[in-house]
Amino acid sequence: MTNNWGRWGADDEAGALNLVTTGVTRRAAGLVTTGQTLSLAQPLGPKTPAPGHRHQPARFMNRDAGDYALGARTPGGFKFAEDTVQFATHSGTHVDALSHAWSGDELYNGHSSALTRSTQGAQRCGAEKLAPVATRGILVDLVRASGEPLAPQTAVGPEDLERGISEAGVSVEPGDAVLVRTGWWESKGSSDSYFADEPGITEEAARWLASRDVALVGADNYAVEQQSAEPGFPAHLVLLHQFGVPLIENLNLAELGEALSVLGRSTFFLLFAPIPLVGSTGTPVTPVAVL
Amino acid sequence: MTNNWGRWGADDEAGALNLVTTGVTRRAAGLVTTGQTLSLAQPLGPKTPAPGHRHQPARFMNRDAGDYALGARTPGGFKFAEDTVQFATHSGTHVDALSHAWSGDELYNGHSSALTRSTQGAQRCGAEKLAPVATRGILVDLVRASGEPLAPQTAVGPEDLERGISEAGVSVEPGDAVLVRTGWWESKGSSDSYFADEPGITEEAARWLASRDVALVGADNYAVEQQSAEPGFPAHLVLLHQFGVPLIENLNLAELGEALSVLGRSTFFLLFAPIPLVGSTGTPVTPVAVL
Amino acid sequence: MTNNWGRWGADDEAGALNLVTTGVTRRAAGLVTTGQTLSLAQPLGPKTPAPGHRHQPARFMNRDAGDYALGARTPGGFKFAEDTVQFATHSGTHVDALSHAWSGDELYNGHSSALTRSTQGAQRCGAEKLAPVATRGILVDLVRASGEPLAPQTAVGPEDLERGISEAGVSVEPGDAVLVRTGWWESKGSSDSYFADEPGITEEAARWLASRDVALVGADNYAVEQQSAEPGFPAHLVLLHQFGVPLIENLNLAELGEALSVLGRSTFFLLFAPIPLVGSTGTPVTPVAVL
Amino acid sequence: MTNNWGRWGADDEAGALNLVTTGVTRRAAGLVTTGQTLSLAQPLGPKTPAPGHRHQPARFMNRDAGDYALGARTPGGFKFAEDTVQFATHSGTHVDALSHAWSGDELYNGHSSALTRSTQGAQRCGAEKLAPVATRGILVDLVRASGEPLAPQTAVGPEDLERGISEAGVSVEPGDAVLVRTGWWESKGSSDSYFADEPGITEEAARWLASRDVALVGADNYAVEQQSAEPGFPAHLVLLHQFGVPLIENLNLAELGEALSVLGRSTFFLLFAPIPLVGSTGTPVTPVAVL
Repeated sequence: MTNNWGRWGADDEAGALNLVTTGVTRRAAGLVTTGQTLSLAQPLGPKTPAPGHRHQPARFMNRDAGDYALGARTPGGFKFAEDTVQFATHSGTHVDALSHAWSGDELYNGHSSALTRSTQGAQRCGAEKLAPVATRGILVDLVRASGEPLAPQTAVGPEDLERGISEAGVSVEPGDAVLVRTGWWESKGSSDSYFADEPGITEEAARWLASRDVALVGADNYAVEQQSAEPGFPAHLVLLHQFGVPLIENLNLAELGEALSVLGRSTFFLLFAPIPLVGSTGTPVTPVAVL
Repeated sequence: MTNNWGRWGADDEAGALNLVTTGVTRRAAGLVTTGQTLSLAQPLGPKTPAPGHRHQPARFMNRDAGDYALGARTPGGFKFAEDTVQFATHSGTHVDALSHAWSGDELYNGHSSALTRSTQGAQRCGAEKLAPVATRGILVDLVRASGEPLAPQTAVGPEDLERGISEAGVSVEPGDAVLVRTGWWESKGSSDSYFADEPGITEEAARWLASRDVALVGADNYAVEQQSAEPGFPAHLVLLHQFGVPLIENLNLAELGEALSVLGRSTFFLLFAPIPLVGSTGTPVTPVAVL
Repeated sequence: MTNNWGRWGADDEAGALNLVTTGVTRRAAGLVTTGQTLSLAQPLGPKTPAPGHRHQPARFMNRDAGDYALGARTPGGFKFAEDTVQFATHSGTHVDALSHAWSGDELYNGHSSALTRSTQGAQRCGAEKLAPVATRGILVDLVRASGEPLAPQTAVGPEDLERGISEAGVSVEPGDAVLVRTGWWESKGSSDSYFADEPGITEEAARWLASRDVALVGADNYAVEQQSAEPGFPAHLVLLHQFGVPLIENLNLAELGEALSVLGRSTFFLLFAPIPLVGSTGTPVTPVAVL
Repeated sequence: MTNNWGRWGADDEAGALNLVTTGVTRRAAGLVTTGQTLSLAQPLGPKTPAPGHRHQPARFMNRDAGDYALGARTPGGFKFAEDTVQFATHSGTHVDALSHAWSGDELYNGHSSALTRSTQGAQRCGAEKLAPVATRGILVDLVRASGEPLAPQTAVGPEDLERGISEAGVSVEPGDAVLVRTGWWESKGSSDSYFADEPGITEEAARWLASRDVALVGADNYAVEQQSAEPGFPAHLVLLHQFGVPLIENLNLAELGEALSVLGRSTFFLLFAPIPLVGSTGTPVTPVAVL
């Protein structure tokens, strides 16, 4: 199988999220043993690292405590504060919608890329088409495996994934979410060199994952895939464009790695609840692991 | 008990979310039977209704298919689109952080309101302090009970909640999330009169819920509580300020109501995964029900 | 002459502003007699009328007096406030840059429209190419002429301009700025019907003005030209695209009309100092009349 | 005289701009000899330098040529592009409104600083109160005087101004605008060190200028006044707060310096046409010199 186009009908915009059937969700719920809940998201705010070509996240207070200090009215003693936020949708922990990357003139499933415009955004495969799912997560913990964060530009190939997963005593099943801990965020997250030369999966690894019918792929780096001097994002094209697999980027996997290590497990109940931003090419998300 | 201040320590900023213990989460996971997953969020975008004093949500395309049609380079055949979004944090389906409402000079738990400023936002009880939780949700379906959406300004008192919950054959337990379906969004969501005169819970109902140690309260209207000509938001003060119970507003509860009705149930596994917007007074959220 | 393409060289992006030679400016400076200075701009802020498809102007305070009331430090007793603004560049009193309107695949002077992209904005004929000029302004005061604001959809043709100008005892000379007072802003500025059915110049009037080598055309309405049920902006194409004449929209001409009436004049020294917004298709401007 | 409070009435919000009488404007217009027009503004756009605590200026295309390349409709052959801009009002070439800086609880003229809030911005002395003026500009060209840009932290005192002005053969008169060319923008404008250690006027120089009844003070650096390790902006307080003299920052004075040098002059007709941003603490401006 070279892609998932047409697999879920000509109109499908949900891609591999379709693989999370009710059966997959039921089995995943059965993984809950301790009840411990972990966020895999980084804080999103004015200090969130952003690459040079994207706008820095911003928060503007529309009403705050200072207004009351200066005499604003308080009907019934009620005071409130509110704010407006602004961010590039590919900032912080976010999911790439299926409209984010393509080649030629078609998005995933043959949707016309010509419907992604300034005026209306992505009219096909926008972030609002990413239905929330609850599924089994598998952590491929390359930091635990090697004892340290991966070096810059380290390529994570199919054999690395295969070894990591088999050492965990599991095998990938349809609808699984595979999260790869490279250690990049932990080691470079507060550094100017975060947005360059990340270690990550290769095109072949992406194809290996897609062929096993995963629903989601995520990593603790800015682009999931390995980055070097050569331009292009081949794993993005394999996963987003050919197989309709959403990518979760800039994950925080350190605490999850620790917790799973203590439990001697690699799998968990994963909840993926993206914000349905209409016409956006990505959206912030707080993936949640329940152990 | 008149409030939850000090209950989880002097530094606590998570409030009633602390009530969702690992035991609560484990039991909630046991509610999953069909594996059906439902989003309770409305789409968030330029057409999302916004009240007059808040900025309309906006999406700006930073790169789109038009740029490629005009000759942008495509290294390795790779094309991508990206965008920036802007919205008031109290737009669409969102959660009120505990910094959103207060009276006097202290937020929930005695945190100084003076730390909510233009420059840094809410330095206490910001949205990033709302840890994700997985708990039992109870739907109080007043549309199903009465056969139609509640009329404008209808007051939902403790007795209404009590009746709705007992008819469902359950009782409220610590850590539960109680969601109230009034039918307001379903009947007025596309109307200019949405942001006025909503039906909703009363101050007494808020106190009743808090006294039962609920972790979360939500509704399918813009402010959870009943609104009439009199100013003020007393239920906000009871829940957010006194008891530290986050509020989820502008929920979409129609499909959940239908699905639960078919199953003859009122409870479900609820995942609450807010975006950790640093210093914000609220954040969008996609609450997810797993049946 | 059917257009001004090539008239000032193949690279020209300033268009008819080139007609304001040093001689034109010197003569215009000679018009100053009373020294009275008038702004022709409307206030620009959150209450500025905006059409439905454009974002409402916004101002966000980044630091304000409330921060000091809450205890912000004041080194040396120094306090300050600052803000961020956001607006559609075609809001309020603004000038249309020559990149704003075109037909076919070329902007004014044959510049490729393909250089107007999401990523970089208008790389040709952006607002930063609108050099400031000081020239003679002529007010065609149709409110004074008819004793009342023009009715909706009133077409102002060449003969109306000709009559208005000859009654003023002047004739149009190269480099002049012609400003047309229709009374639309004065009568409809605070009305919901402002952005529809405006009176204004016709395509023929636009051609008449261009043939007289005017440098600028402005009016006290939202689009300079007459608007009716038929779509299209033919006068925009004549002036911006074919002749490179920038348009000033949403002018406030009431006070100028009064002042000139008192003096028995129709001409004045006009300063046009647009903000050099890089790559923008328009920019706010405060045109200034010195009498 | 220690300040200008009350000088133009208790309600005055225009400050020293009141000094530009019609007589001052008439005489200034008489300075026009060559008719050459020069912009003193820097381009304002995504690449404009911004200090770390302020948001980088941004431009978002709402409609561009790519939309037409992808098939957007063109009624009557008409195509158009439009954009939204966002910037801190103290970015690029801008004027500090009289609400920008104060000490104690009062702005210039005793206006309550408590009216500068998150919700409504500066309700007193906002940028919309800066009436445009046309006056005489005097360039104090310290680059020409010393043959090179001033070194970091160079203090420009009253004697430096006095010498510079007397060498130019003029004396400061009420209503004049004094612009100081330090060479900072020319030498550091594209450098990371631009926003630190600028040369500029001292508190004493500010007082000297105010005592001569200048209407405006500007410079080619980010804060007009000399900056060193010591915190505070004393010249801001003298000029903005005590005397109501608006400051123009980030001017481009290189071309003006060259042109005046060729003509052997130091004075010129200056037009100051700020954008009337309602409630803002500053606004972009394109000051224009007519020689």
